[in-house]
Amino acid sequence: MNIRFQPIGCVHSPYKTLQDLATRRKNGRVKIEKTEGSLEIFPEFEEGLNDIDGFSHLIIIFAFHQSSSGSLCAHPPHDHKKRGVFSTRSPHRPNPLGMTIVELVKREGNILKVAGIDMINDTPILDIKPYTPRDLKEGARFGWLEEHLKNT
Amino acid sequence: MNIRFQPIGCVHSPYKTLQDLATRRKNGRVKIEKTEGSLEIFPEFEEGLNDIDGFSHLIIIFAFHQSSSGSLCAHPPHDHKKRGVFSTRSPHRPNPLGMTIVELVKREGNILKVAGIDMINDTPILDIKPYTPRDLKEGARFGWLEEHLKNT
Repeated sequence: MNIRFQPIGCVHSPYKTLQDLATRRKNGRVKIEKTEGSLEIFPEFEEGLNDIDGFSHLIIIFAFHQSSSGSLCAHPPHDHKKRGVFSTRSPHRPNPLGMTIVELVKREGNILKVAGIDMINDTPILDIKPYTPRDLKEGARFGWLEEHLKNT
Repeated sequence: MNIRFQPIGCVHSPYKTLQDLATRRKNGRVKIEKTEGSLEIFPEFEEGLNDIDGFSHLIIIFAFHQSSSGSLCAHPPHDHKKRGVFSTRSPHRPNPLGMTIVELVKREGNILKVAGIDMINDTPILDIKPYTPRDLKEGARFGWLEEHLKNT
């Protein structure tokens, strides 16, 4: 069974390659959270952006268009061992689907100006959803990441 | 341009249809957050679940396999007007992609026992990602939803 999707827009980002992003990430995650860019939604989908302005954060689902797929393990940055890919956010995964939460700075027609971009330029956008109270999981535990969080 | 994905597993849920879920939702969101079910990951992807046990919450990306696609507006439950689909979590959207965050109760081999299921039975799972500190957006604003949150 194959499931097909078509892009509803594309990302304009200062990161041109996965390597740019990896280099930036090594310099600390605060910088990525401040990275500004824009999401261009194709005109035929613009009506779907109505009422989005009041949300401070948006969930973006996108295709990792420059990744290799299929790998079941990943070697996260800063980590000392390989991990099961579903316990990482690696771009190299069985289905090359990405998800990130950005801050909505401003909507201008079919363009969303956002901050916190960790996608590369020309990334195909598949869906946008509002970030809602159900997505805020206070008291969550972060598995193998916790050890790394203590050190940053 | 079409982008193809294949299921890595499927959902076992007490909700059999979208209507079951809509009825349950009308009875209050607390019940959905307690709904238990399981995520069956196909054996060929099981290795990708390594190291997942320590995370309390997982992001599930799935296909809305019983939805109609293409609609640019949605009429959310409890709301009095139609909204742009990208400002809602409606299952009827240009790309029928769903995203929900569940609580991981227990891993048993290729089966993840979870709580907070709002998918229907047999939903195809496309990806699993760990919920990390970057997904926790404290102080977020929730647009048109805020009015409804005040009333619940």
